[in-house]
Amino acid sequence: MNSGPYSSPFKPSTGKVNLSHGAGGRAMSQLIDQLFIKHFDNQQLRQRNDQAVLTLPPGRLAISTDGHVISPLFFPGGDIGSLAVHGTLNDVCMSGAAPLYLTAGFILEEGYPLTDLEKIVSSMAAAAREAGTPIVTGDTKVVERGKGDGVFITTTGIGIVPEGVNISAELARPGHAILLSGSIGDHGVAVMAGRENLQFETSMLSDSAALHGLVAAMVAAAPADIHCLRDPTRGGLAASLNELALQSGVGMLIDEALIPVKAEVRAACEILGLDPLYVANEGKLVCICSESSATRLLNAMRQHPLGRDAMQIGTVSDDAECFVQMQTELGGRRIVDWPVGEQLPRIC
Amino acid sequence: MNSGPYSSPFKPSTGKVNLSHGAGGRAMSQLIDQLFIKHFDNQQLRQRNDQAVLTLPPGRLAISTDGHVISPLFFPGGDIGSLAVHGTLNDVCMSGAAPLYLTAGFILEEGYPLTDLEKIVSSMAAAAREAGTPIVTGDTKVVERGKGDGVFITTTGIGIVPEGVNISAELARPGHAILLSGSIGDHGVAVMAGRENLQFETSMLSDSAALHGLVAAMVAAAPADIHCLRDPTRGGLAASLNELALQSGVGMLIDEALIPVKAEVRAACEILGLDPLYVANEGKLVCICSESSATRLLNAMRQHPLGRDAMQIGTVSDDAECFVQMQTELGGRRIVDWPVGEQLPRIC
Repeated sequence: MNSGPYSSPFKPSTGKVNLSHGAGGRAMSQLIDQLFIKHFDNQQLRQRNDQAVLTLPPGRLAISTDGHVISPLFFPGGDIGSLAVHGTLNDVCMSGAAPLYLTAGFILEEGYPLTDLEKIVSSMAAAAREAGTPIVTGDTKVVERGKGDGVFITTTGIGIVPEGVNISAELARPGHAILLSGSIGDHGVAVMAGRENLQFETSMLSDSAALHGLVAAMVAAAPADIHCLRDPTRGGLAASLNELALQSGVGMLIDEALIPVKAEVRAACEILGLDPLYVANEGKLVCICSESSATRLLNAMRQHPLGRDAMQIGTVSDDAECFVQMQTELGGRRIVDWPVGEQLPRIC
Repeated sequence: MNSGPYSSPFKPSTGKVNLSHGAGGRAMSQLIDQLFIKHFDNQQLRQRNDQAVLTLPPGRLAISTDGHVISPLFFPGGDIGSLAVHGTLNDVCMSGAAPLYLTAGFILEEGYPLTDLEKIVSSMAAAAREAGTPIVTGDTKVVERGKGDGVFITTTGIGIVPEGVNISAELARPGHAILLSGSIGDHGVAVMAGRENLQFETSMLSDSAALHGLVAAMVAAAPADIHCLRDPTRGGLAASLNELALQSGVGMLIDEALIPVKAEVRAACEILGLDPLYVANEGKLVCICSESSATRLLNAMRQHPLGRDAMQIGTVSDDAECFVQMQTELGGRRIVDWPVGEQLPRIC
């Protein structure tokens, strides 16, 4: 038997990533077999082709790619593995699509412990299994110590958009309702707390979650009346609303009192000097829908575990300047501007 | 007008990548608009959604993801931008598929010059245009100085496999012919020469190229008789043949005298202490086909500019040990083993 990858035992418990794990030979083959295929286990990966060949249901294909460079790699409520599944699946389903498959490209730094890599791969596999979206093909590269930062993971997701669904950033119109699926700021604050080793009285967890079930429930409730969907990740709710306003050529008016922010997140934001509107989320969505369907959609969202706290937070307005404005809790009105500079680098 | 991304002019000529280019706000939006969308220009990108929605022709979908971490970023015959297109397209079409679309995830290092980034993006756009495969969605992340190495690009490609084509690594059978599309070692040697600043009398160029045209010509010539296709990148021809042998449970017997190696590549390999069998290629393919179709396929390959030097280099054998053996030019026979360790780190 061609000894192939198996010249020496694979020992994640003692080993570290080295350059030969990315060199296309025996060590790489062993890493793929005994780590990636072991955890991601599926027929496509086992074929060991450089691509997956898939028979998809009919319909328009949604595809999205997201790089993940979060620091630290393990944070309260998740890790880069689960995040790399959730982040990309969510981008796929923000088209209304049902996600089906994932691919993964790993960029590993020489010297990274294989035990930690196995934890990440195992968490990634669990997240993919839970979402029903197998990781069917991938790639591994290794860079020298000091030329990377442990693990970067770029995932691509594909899915099929149901017939009759037409969701895109330029489709917001004055009068449309703005819905938000739950509280904001959880992910960014949890990661910052993990990064700075801050101790808060209540433990804060990232909201990192796969939103495709929530989206499917919404699409079932009002397939033709959802016009825009976006998950407010980097740059937070403020960035997402500004992007949609600019792309659609409309304004937005939101009401601060209606935007859910957990008390502990608000408190942590005050300590950290952050505005929750600009803090990243990984398990929330914004929906722009026809006014007539807002209640139906909110009811559907609230029946799903990830949309229990869903609210209508405002309305799309006619505004050639495409401003996002907010009625404040103090009774004033202020412009919610684009994020400037970097509030929280490497949050996803 | 919501000032959106345009608070200050985008000046690639003087600027450098900074963390705000990955932060989800104004600077990132401007980078996307004035660099990525400008060069990759297409309708899907202009919609500024977090995913692309595509109507594909019917058929099985081939999908592949490849990370690119090559060093140096610019090398004789290409750069990381063109390589990131060719590398992934080639993996897609090694299923026999006609590639259709690409996605791209960039991981940029803080401080990298925007002029160089623009050169890379422009080269990537040109390669994608030439191949007819637009880059329809993507992502940009920025890591702190010293946590990356200039630019990493992970691309995903999709395509449709023609009806009646069934190509996979486990389908090689004893008696099948082994075809090689041209000379080996060009890419690895060119990159090494660029990296080490070696001066050779003749300039050596990477063979980096998109192979889908060659594959289409081969599929047209013998759609049902191509059983395996692989582009021998990292680990070279030796790794590809060993992978196919192991996956199919067969042996391979190749003839050294029939394997094209350019004289200057052979000379450089001697100086660098490399065996061309193990050196990476980026514009070559190995094909395992039915013996009866070998001549027809070779004729089709030789009529394509990327297959002019195509040769049958050997035959698949019955070998429970899955060894790749080579008849040497001196008349002996030796085992072509899996590559061990890393010959050439960061070659793609």
